[in-house]
Amino acid sequence: MSDAGSMRPDAIAPLETAADVLAACDTLAAISRSDSGIDRRYLTPEHAAANATTAGWLKAAGLQSWQDGAGNLWGRWCPETLSSEREVPRLVIGSHLDSVPDAGRYDGILGVLLGVAALTHFRQRAEESGGSRLPFALEVVGFGDEEGTRFGATLLGSHAIAGRWQPGWEIVEDEDGISLGDALERFGLSGQTAARASLQENPPLGYLEVHIEQGPVLEAENLALGTVTGIAGARRFAVNFVGQAGHAGTTPMALRQDALCAAAEWTLAVEALARDVQAGRRADMADHSLVATVGCCELRPGAVNVIPGGAALSLDIRALDDAQRDRALDELLNEAHRIAARRGLTFHCEQTHAADAVACDEGLMQAVDAGIAVTGQTPFRLPSGAGHDAMAVSHLCPVGMLFLRCERGISHHPLEAVTEDDVAKALAALIASIEAVAAKYV
Amino acid sequence: MSDAGSMRPDAIAPLETAADVLAACDTLAAISRSDSGIDRRYLTPEHAAANATTAGWLKAAGLQSWQDGAGNLWGRWCPETLSSEREVPRLVIGSHLDSVPDAGRYDGILGVLLGVAALTHFRQRAEESGGSRLPFALEVVGFGDEEGTRFGATLLGSHAIAGRWQPGWEIVEDEDGISLGDALERFGLSGQTAARASLQENPPLGYLEVHIEQGPVLEAENLALGTVTGIAGARRFAVNFVGQAGHAGTTPMALRQDALCAAAEWTLAVEALARDVQAGRRADMADHSLVATVGCCELRPGAVNVIPGGAALSLDIRALDDAQRDRALDELLNEAHRIAARRGLTFHCEQTHAADAVACDEGLMQAVDAGIAVTGQTPFRLPSGAGHDAMAVSHLCPVGMLFLRCERGISHHPLEAVTEDDVAKALAALIASIEAVAAKYV
Repeated sequence: MSDAGSMRPDAIAPLETAADVLAACDTLAAISRSDSGIDRRYLTPEHAAANATTAGWLKAAGLQSWQDGAGNLWGRWCPETLSSEREVPRLVIGSHLDSVPDAGRYDGILGVLLGVAALTHFRQRAEESGGSRLPFALEVVGFGDEEGTRFGATLLGSHAIAGRWQPGWEIVEDEDGISLGDALERFGLSGQTAARASLQENPPLGYLEVHIEQGPVLEAENLALGTVTGIAGARRFAVNFVGQAGHAGTTPMALRQDALCAAAEWTLAVEALARDVQAGRRADMADHSLVATVGCCELRPGAVNVIPGGAALSLDIRALDDAQRDRALDELLNEAHRIAARRGLTFHCEQTHAADAVACDEGLMQAVDAGIAVTGQTPFRLPSGAGHDAMAVSHLCPVGMLFLRCERGISHHPLEAVTEDDVAKALAALIASIEAVAAKYV
Repeated sequence: MSDAGSMRPDAIAPLETAADVLAACDTLAAISRSDSGIDRRYLTPEHAAANATTAGWLKAAGLQSWQDGAGNLWGRWCPETLSSEREVPRLVIGSHLDSVPDAGRYDGILGVLLGVAALTHFRQRAEESGGSRLPFALEVVGFGDEEGTRFGATLLGSHAIAGRWQPGWEIVEDEDGISLGDALERFGLSGQTAARASLQENPPLGYLEVHIEQGPVLEAENLALGTVTGIAGARRFAVNFVGQAGHAGTTPMALRQDALCAAAEWTLAVEALARDVQAGRRADMADHSLVATVGCCELRPGAVNVIPGGAALSLDIRALDDAQRDRALDELLNEAHRIAARRGLTFHCEQTHAADAVACDEGLMQAVDAGIAVTGQTPFRLPSGAGHDAMAVSHLCPVGMLFLRCERGISHHPLEAVTEDDVAKALAALIASIEAVAAKYV
């Protein structure tokens, strides 16, 4: 572990308010490999600069700071009452500091900086009152890679602390042909240090992550905050309908094997099933978190005067309940075969991605509910359809998440936006959630 | 008019049988700008070579041959009984000698060579019997451009003889930046000679074209030949559904404005209307030739984990009855607006092509029916959904067409195939059709 503090800028103030946190998001947004937008990738000079800048805010608040063997940036505050103990229990608050290309400024970053602000709050309150009632230490982590922008593989930082670092990843190359192993070396790290970032030998008591929702539900509900019930498991498929190309002018309708028409029928079947489940019209599917999307459609040959002979689609299907998701998937694949058979086409598909769902810890959900209630809002629970660091961390300890409303559900885009009022509520809710965890901690 | 005979190969035999015609198709197939497939374009060295080779077969049969001012290759046989007359009426048999890239060997070419074989037949029969009962001269034309492969604009050769040459075309450039005007000059022609290829001052009494069907109808009917009732008029549109892109994991089904789902619904509406009309289930649409096709579908952004925000489709709609086609089109565009409105999307479209239908002449259809009957087959009538030279020639004189079965309806592809037996029937039917025209000619 190197001391990231040696790289910190001078004369910076600690993060105390929502306005401080938003200004810090702007500061990190300027650390980008690109002049025209935010692009901050794992093990790059921008990664190092973001870590150093964040370490600066931690140090400014009098908090410990270090970088682990996988490049994750950590901060820590320990109540004085515990500082003499050999093994101090700790609650980790975190999210990620990396970005997708042409990113927004809040995805991940906001969660890390709210964690920094929460630690700052507890340290300052301890000084003011001369002590703290927290029965555990607080740590904040800014993961170096969640998005997988540089090496394709996602959640590298959180996999490392969960003890799930795979040496096989080190040969994966970025777009310039630099391997992950080489990139670690150039960053002053190695595959071995990354593996040693594991906290499995002494796991935290829990992990709390604050994140923008990246969806439209809270905005549609007119709520600032929500308690996440779990992170949906996703499966993805490359799907093909193969019919027969033909002359659009000379082939009677009854003699066609039009791959787009088959694909259209199936796309509507995908939509109808997910709609029915979400609307509670499927008594056999009690998990209403199911979403299913056909995002790609490529036709062969794809010409104005030729009947499509082939259609290549994608399917993305997610739900909190893996078994129900797989039953829905079976139903959709069977329907695809029926549509293809009725139209004289063939159908085949191949799985391109699979991840099981992760459930949030009931105790942490109750703490987050209590935190939200402190802001004056009725607690509201919703699933996460997007993946988060908490997925990997769930292999290490119980996880909980607090979602924050974002404008029009937009993320992974420069238009990503939050309000200062919502950020203030999120900070208050996070602090109160930590206190709720403490109140229940024996 | 230059004498194409000066370029002809020596020692070639006239085309008399179906086997001769198929061998001649093979000979022309070898005249290509590409080693890997057939590619023969307007005003190229391959065009000149195809004209010279075809002129060779005409000369071998003792027939006149010349190239007109637009680069079309002509042959002529005149009964001796008429040869002293000042203005001899004439029936023109023709099709085109150019090709699409990576073409088959029969589209167009077979019709020209069957015309050459028919003229050869009448000339030989006249010699054998010492005279002919035909009351008109026979001409065959091999148009230099039908496909539009080189300059984008189609039917250049047949437009020229129909007096519809447009001087504005001469500035259109090929992929190498050579204008049509320059290409004519390099071929020993000019825009002026092309315009003077018009036969409007002395139109033929009719035009007969033999062509492979380029569709699956005759094969499905188990028939070698068919009489074409007309050439469908086509309209084409670029169609756009615009919704809202979103995260495939985080956007509930009820909050989506998925452009692919709207496009899918409309694609099925397009198919359903055309199917209903062709199956006679629409009492208000008596012309069962209607076909409608969505051949292109491009999504924005087109990613596995993003809800499609935009879908760009094409529509191609054709029928013999222009008014009915336009009513069907209105119905489909109204349906698109309804689908978009119900889903909270917008819809807009732009016409990219429009051509009115061309009806075949009833007298020539009866002659072709009679010609087919001579082969022992019951006459069968069908529309042409594809465009042909007869469309342009219809502005000059009455037109008729004889369709010949092709394997699986495939054309514009190296797999284009016909049987020798069908070609023999087509030759017999063409000769008998010409005799039927003669029998009715006063």
